[in-house]
Amino acid sequence: MTEKNRGRSASLGELAELVGGRVSGDSSIIICGVASLDSAGSGEITFLSNPKLRSLLPQSEAAAIVVTPKLAENVDKPLLLVGNPYLAFAKLLTFFRVPAFKAEGISSGADVHPDAEIADNVTICSGCVVGAGARVAQGTILHPNVVIYPGANVGQDCVLHAGAIVREDCHLGERVILQPAAVVGSDGFGFAPDGEAYFKIPQVGRVIVEDDVEIGASSTIDRGTLGDTRIGRGTKIDNLVQVAHNVQIGENCILVSQVAIAGSTRIGDHSTFGGQSAAAGHLKVGSNVTIAARGGVTNDVADGTSLAGAPAIPHRDWLKASVSMIHLPNLRRDVSKLKQKLAELEAMLTEHED
Amino acid sequence: MTEKNRGRSASLGELAELVGGRVSGDSSIIICGVASLDSAGSGEITFLSNPKLRSLLPQSEAAAIVVTPKLAENVDKPLLLVGNPYLAFAKLLTFFRVPAFKAEGISSGADVHPDAEIADNVTICSGCVVGAGARVAQGTILHPNVVIYPGANVGQDCVLHAGAIVREDCHLGERVILQPAAVVGSDGFGFAPDGEAYFKIPQVGRVIVEDDVEIGASSTIDRGTLGDTRIGRGTKIDNLVQVAHNVQIGENCILVSQVAIAGSTRIGDHSTFGGQSAAAGHLKVGSNVTIAARGGVTNDVADGTSLAGAPAIPHRDWLKASVSMIHLPNLRRDVSKLKQKLAELEAMLTEHED
Amino acid sequence: MTEKNRGRSASLGELAELVGGRVSGDSSIIICGVASLDSAGSGEITFLSNPKLRSLLPQSEAAAIVVTPKLAENVDKPLLLVGNPYLAFAKLLTFFRVPAFKAEGISSGADVHPDAEIADNVTICSGCVVGAGARVAQGTILHPNVVIYPGANVGQDCVLHAGAIVREDCHLGERVILQPAAVVGSDGFGFAPDGEAYFKIPQVGRVIVEDDVEIGASSTIDRGTLGDTRIGRGTKIDNLVQVAHNVQIGENCILVSQVAIAGSTRIGDHSTFGGQSAAAGHLKVGSNVTIAARGGVTNDVADGTSLAGAPAIPHRDWLKASVSMIHLPNLRRDVSKLKQKLAELEAMLTEHED
Repeated sequence: MTEKNRGRSASLGELAELVGGRVSGDSSIIICGVASLDSAGSGEITFLSNPKLRSLLPQSEAAAIVVTPKLAENVDKPLLLVGNPYLAFAKLLTFFRVPAFKAEGISSGADVHPDAEIADNVTICSGCVVGAGARVAQGTILHPNVVIYPGANVGQDCVLHAGAIVREDCHLGERVILQPAAVVGSDGFGFAPDGEAYFKIPQVGRVIVEDDVEIGASSTIDRGTLGDTRIGRGTKIDNLVQVAHNVQIGENCILVSQVAIAGSTRIGDHSTFGGQSAAAGHLKVGSNVTIAARGGVTNDVADGTSLAGAPAIPHRDWLKASVSMIHLPNLRRDVSKLKQKLAELEAMLTEHED
Repeated sequence: MTEKNRGRSASLGELAELVGGRVSGDSSIIICGVASLDSAGSGEITFLSNPKLRSLLPQSEAAAIVVTPKLAENVDKPLLLVGNPYLAFAKLLTFFRVPAFKAEGISSGADVHPDAEIADNVTICSGCVVGAGARVAQGTILHPNVVIYPGANVGQDCVLHAGAIVREDCHLGERVILQPAAVVGSDGFGFAPDGEAYFKIPQVGRVIVEDDVEIGASSTIDRGTLGDTRIGRGTKIDNLVQVAHNVQIGENCILVSQVAIAGSTRIGDHSTFGGQSAAAGHLKVGSNVTIAARGGVTNDVADGTSLAGAPAIPHRDWLKASVSMIHLPNLRRDVSKLKQKLAELEAMLTEHED
Repeated sequence: MTEKNRGRSASLGELAELVGGRVSGDSSIIICGVASLDSAGSGEITFLSNPKLRSLLPQSEAAAIVVTPKLAENVDKPLLLVGNPYLAFAKLLTFFRVPAFKAEGISSGADVHPDAEIADNVTICSGCVVGAGARVAQGTILHPNVVIYPGANVGQDCVLHAGAIVREDCHLGERVILQPAAVVGSDGFGFAPDGEAYFKIPQVGRVIVEDDVEIGASSTIDRGTLGDTRIGRGTKIDNLVQVAHNVQIGENCILVSQVAIAGSTRIGDHSTFGGQSAAAGHLKVGSNVTIAARGGVTNDVADGTSLAGAPAIPHRDWLKASVSMIHLPNLRRDVSKLKQKLAELEAMLTEHED
């Protein structure tokens, strides 16, 4: 789908200013949307970052192209020259994007407690419930059926999608995005054995979600037992991810879909967990760590390490080991034959000795 | 639980017509429900497809039995003879099923935007929110607290269970079923690196869900970045499944619980992913492919292939390799001994040479 | 966060009675909250169960300490002596905890069907929908946007968090806790092949959740096909867990996050499934079984067994095998060299023979 005709428009020159680039060609042409190289029509801007797709340029009907100076040679179109076309493209998409729900204040179908503090310029859609003592800062939008428990705190310019839930006393920083049905502040999974049964340990800590964090659809972030669970600034969490109680995640980390981080584990900054990977509890995972998809971390991890497999081992070793797996049955057969042959040789030699 | 006394009833002859079978015995007897072989009472029909359970027939109080002609010999009950008793049983259950919520039009507790297009004969329960420009076609039921974002399109005879969410501009075909809290159209997980931080790439594509698709509870289907994510006709998706942006799934595929399909991967028709299995991004998985539970697909997969393990290898090879795993420690010990013995033999032979 | 100033208070003597311990020191001092050893302030009680943390005691500002008699020696504070400090601590936290939403009867923003049976002393928050014929017993709280389908039954003193969904005819026992967006009674994943397509088998069984069960955020418990899915008394289920149709789970089991139990599998009492582990369908897993994180059970499991890996094998064997994995490439190299050397030796010997 192109974003054409959604309403917003700007000159190529204005867009260059927006993304920090410069124009080659007519900077006065008007752009009203962004689209991919093969689908962009007149009035739309597209981008080129993959040299292999350069051959598609002549056929493109795009009005202008975001491109690096290097790839721009001999292109006969208005150009927006930038160092990082992918990032510029993201910024243009953001500029042209029109929100699904218009900002319309507090819907009469929302139930906002009189003791909640709602800033000006907040949109609260129908079906939302905001509890006593909760605070919602300016510019934030709560899509339909969002629930903010009493005492929770939602910062400025947050976007909470339908069905997202923020439990009591939890904090969201600024520009936090919760995808639909994301849960912040569910009880940590803590029980004290009591004979054969388990006695629930009330989880009275909070979740602190720092600025610019995104949490995916149906992901669950448990509150701390006594202290807080913390998601550091700029960290991005995909769908169906589990973050257990008292976990501390640093800044600008990436947790891909279906990751699970067990209780009290600490992760540094700028670390990445691939899809379905996991970390056991009470571990210290450093910064700039990469865990491959499906990796299972069972020990502390030093800064800058790349691991794979479960239990996780250095990625390079895992690649070799996993390639070897398929040969395991043959290997067993070989070793069995070797044992037999060696026994024959020994018998033969002993014979010689005699 | 039997479905007895839920209200509907039909003669055995009418049911035979419904499922495309024929009656042996009295076709005028009245059936008012379906139950399992051991729990069916008078007035209820049951089914037999497993020959091993044939011995249970004499004690069954069922009024009639759905069975193949082959298994029917010497059974002294009214019979409904069909080629596929399991399918006929499913059709009978469907006939006798009574919906939980009665069709009652649009609840006064729902918030339907005046610019939404709602067909006749639609049920919208309390707590639902339907945005501007959204369309809901006839015969569809939205259970409580369903959210349809602006511009979304829900086809005829769909069943959306409580808490299901369809984001802006997404399309559901006809007879689509969303289990509770299923999410269609959450943002794809896409970010452009911007120094140490990540800049969100707006996801402005849609999700297209074709006819007869079912999506499980708390499953999440991400919208495309620019293009669309597509779930093909008749595909069935279990609970807690992740389908990432721009994924294309063909017709009549099966995705069992907790599967994850990473971004832009394409899957053909009639392929099956077992529980907790996954496919990496940007792959081409063919038709009639079977991925075993927990399989992790990391390369393109040809039509008709069966894979298992992670990284996924042919299922037969994986079975052998995984059986061998437990012998690995012994194997290492054997090889170590072989090395020692061989060294001894070499030493002995060298001595001989001298 | 400490629970200080949340309102409740009691003397140390009263607390000793509550947890079944005895006081050493002044039993009349007033306690008004619980906190961790390093954060407890005046008026707060803390606990010590780990001998290693004993050195922190002198600096603690806590008013009193929950501790075993053995660890209590030479501690110069009022003490609450118990056999199991962790359990006593959980009971104290429970005593001091103040619920997020005050009990305030049925909100005018809730939609409770006139034919639903609601006991006295029930709290139903805004946005909840309770269907015809549903029953909610006394002392239970439905947080905002909970949906109880027609005919469902919620026992006494249950806590259903925001967005939790209980489908038609399902039963929750007493003191059941549903975390946010937990789903009880979604359709089981059952389809009858019908040519290339799949025909949905209506799932008309129920889910029976017994007393004292907790179900985590966004976990999904499917209803039975004809019979019931059952979660036994005292079983605790973490977030994002899948329990398929007709599964029978015994008492006091633990299912950690992202576990999946496939259809019709039966689990005994007091068994534990670690995070991301799974059981295939139609299996019999005994009592007191432990499945390690990521374990994949593919066969019946005897009582008292500990398994790990996928396919799951005895935990001890798996530890050895998984440690060996990293050596597999070297092992292959070794075996290859051995074959070569052995061939050389054979050649040499054959020469000798000549």
